[in-house]
Amino acid sequence: MRSFFKVVNIEKVLSMATSFDRVSVEQVPLSSANGRVLAEDVGADLDIPGFTRATMDGYAVQGTSTFGASEGNPAFLTVVGQVDMGEKPELTVGPGEAVRIATGGMLPTGSDAVVMVEHTEAIDADTIEVYKSAAPGQHVIARGEDMRSGDWILHCGRPLRPQEIGLLAAVGRARLNVFRQPRVGILSTGDEVVPVETLPAPGQIRDVNTAALAAFIASAGGLANAYGIVPDDYETLSAACRRALEANDMVLISGGSSVGTRDFTIDVLEALEAAEILVHGVSIRPGKPTILARAGGKPVWGLPGHVTSAMVVFAVLVRPFLEHLSGIAPQFKRRFRLPARLTRNLPSVQGRVDYVRVRLVAGDDGMEADPVLGKSGLIRTMAMADGLLCIDENTEGLDQGTVVLVDLF
Amino acid sequence: MRSFFKVVNIEKVLSMATSFDRVSVEQVPLSSANGRVLAEDVGADLDIPGFTRATMDGYAVQGTSTFGASEGNPAFLTVVGQVDMGEKPELTVGPGEAVRIATGGMLPTGSDAVVMVEHTEAIDADTIEVYKSAAPGQHVIARGEDMRSGDWILHCGRPLRPQEIGLLAAVGRARLNVFRQPRVGILSTGDEVVPVETLPAPGQIRDVNTAALAAFIASAGGLANAYGIVPDDYETLSAACRRALEANDMVLISGGSSVGTRDFTIDVLEALEAAEILVHGVSIRPGKPTILARAGGKPVWGLPGHVTSAMVVFAVLVRPFLEHLSGIAPQFKRRFRLPARLTRNLPSVQGRVDYVRVRLVAGDDGMEADPVLGKSGLIRTMAMADGLLCIDENTEGLDQGTVVLVDLF
Repeated sequence: MRSFFKVVNIEKVLSMATSFDRVSVEQVPLSSANGRVLAEDVGADLDIPGFTRATMDGYAVQGTSTFGASEGNPAFLTVVGQVDMGEKPELTVGPGEAVRIATGGMLPTGSDAVVMVEHTEAIDADTIEVYKSAAPGQHVIARGEDMRSGDWILHCGRPLRPQEIGLLAAVGRARLNVFRQPRVGILSTGDEVVPVETLPAPGQIRDVNTAALAAFIASAGGLANAYGIVPDDYETLSAACRRALEANDMVLISGGSSVGTRDFTIDVLEALEAAEILVHGVSIRPGKPTILARAGGKPVWGLPGHVTSAMVVFAVLVRPFLEHLSGIAPQFKRRFRLPARLTRNLPSVQGRVDYVRVRLVAGDDGMEADPVLGKSGLIRTMAMADGLLCIDENTEGLDQGTVVLVDLF
Repeated sequence: MRSFFKVVNIEKVLSMATSFDRVSVEQVPLSSANGRVLAEDVGADLDIPGFTRATMDGYAVQGTSTFGASEGNPAFLTVVGQVDMGEKPELTVGPGEAVRIATGGMLPTGSDAVVMVEHTEAIDADTIEVYKSAAPGQHVIARGEDMRSGDWILHCGRPLRPQEIGLLAAVGRARLNVFRQPRVGILSTGDEVVPVETLPAPGQIRDVNTAALAAFIASAGGLANAYGIVPDDYETLSAACRRALEANDMVLISGGSSVGTRDFTIDVLEALEAAEILVHGVSIRPGKPTILARAGGKPVWGLPGHVTSAMVVFAVLVRPFLEHLSGIAPQFKRRFRLPARLTRNLPSVQGRVDYVRVRLVAGDDGMEADPVLGKSGLIRTMAMADGLLCIDENTEGLDQGTVVLVDLF
């Protein structure tokens, strides 16, 4: 068995992500763009709104016509017409005049404010009393107040949430350029691994990693391609690996870092065209026996066979690579961590980063992080956890009551 | 114009969700189940693991054979064979004996612990020195330690994350029952609204809400059906509404709560078969003119026309209804809010719940919540925000420096 020969720390691994190319760009309709990553800078094609609009139902007026108005001393205004929705009003509002307008209506020439209908009373068909003065600009959104024609509003590398989708609709982008979703191939290795449908014989276990990793990839915005269970031999793994590399932007070999497969996983990777082993061992727990290689310019991971180790390595190492490939610009990576008070002491070892699965529970004094105990091979521990907390390499352990930051997953 | 006649508070609206039926159940392959909601209770079909497994590479031994072993006083063990991966080993481990085993291998009869290979040295082909004692149970996962056959492991109403997908793979669930994704119809109303592709004339604005709401629905696990822009007249809206109700589990009428459309939206809703107006006005801001009706047993919402108001109402009111329809059980609703320090004073009015858009920024002393200022009609303010903070109806305002809880979106 070979020893780990390129053990590095987590920062070093993460710094390698940018040495890989982002995926290419494709055009999609706006209705398919939610959750995708913008691949162009987008500007406003015109002033938004394109005209000064009412934000309340009421009367468009000259603010000065209402100055000093109160319950006891109302202003009397003459109603000279109404604004039809979606139409440019032809009439003009002079001093002492008012025009009926609904929310979203275009203010007529001469008017600069809207009096809320609740602050008026109709005296007769042509006259209203106004009980409150309206400052110029009140209850209106001015032309271009949201965006000015030519303003840059969204930048390349930004993940699109529903809010951004709305913004793109506002500037007329029915189609837009986004990064392709990275394709990720999953190879499951191990002579003890059998398909999910199979009843395992003694010594066998079902293939948990393919299903779990495919779901993690999808949740991170990638497209997973499962290549099934590859028998533990050099030729078969090598052929499957080459096939997967051709069709994908990244390849995960699950179980390929455990002894038995580890040695020839390394051999297979080294023998691929234009290949280089970048990492063989990471100073994290769980996840130490992780392998990272570059082959044909693409990242290939050998993930630990233990299901929970594989999941932690995905969350901590693989996902940031996937996000980089996806085109997400560093300034748009939004990952908030939740502060919580630790419910018990946690030992750790200096010189290694520990990831601990925690459950979050509401305590008397805010959130509490309750470590999920159990060996890293126990898959149930992952389903019980709300997130991970990280104990850095310079910390020997954490005391009960310490406020920690939890990465949700 | 009708006045609001059923203004209620937010708790009252939310309590109505459970009066609607959840969607029906369908069967999907495990590979399509990520993000779906489980519609059955799932148990372990066998002990997991089905046999006692090694969690390290090394030698299967009787722990007692190594007791007292140390660097200075190693134990000498006879290697009597090896465990092949995926096979049930035929050999037996007696006192003073060891069997080569890899991570994941099945422990042979007689053995109860694994000595890590790092704590051994091979003396000759049949003999090893062991430098550290191994307690019984060390570096193994016992049969059934993860789950016992018949244990309930996941319950109906649980949203499935990648971790749960892995758990389902472990118990052999290649297919499973999940709730259908709720279908949500979107009708956009307003004579001033034009399609995204169109260059708006003066007085017109592009349809932002259809695209934004469809994306919000998708992000909340629903399937959006857009019915386009419906002209502001009773017959057309009524026909579109009936069509949408037939094909969907919930209907959103965007802009239907603003004056002009509000009156006949109410009329249309009341005239539908088996219809009842449940809410006409909610004591929140933004979002007061929200309408909720029940028609044919399904929720129909009249959402404010202001884009940001519609988005806030979706996040605060519509999404919880959608989650209920989706089958998510209350105990599995996981929504963590992030504590952050307010960067400025925020005024508010008692008797009304205010939702304020905030940007989250890293401060010297943890996260800071920086209110995004701007009128609620400005769509840019939503894209600038990371989340919402809520000022409850009993609070008159919040002081700078107060720690608030932010709902991310």
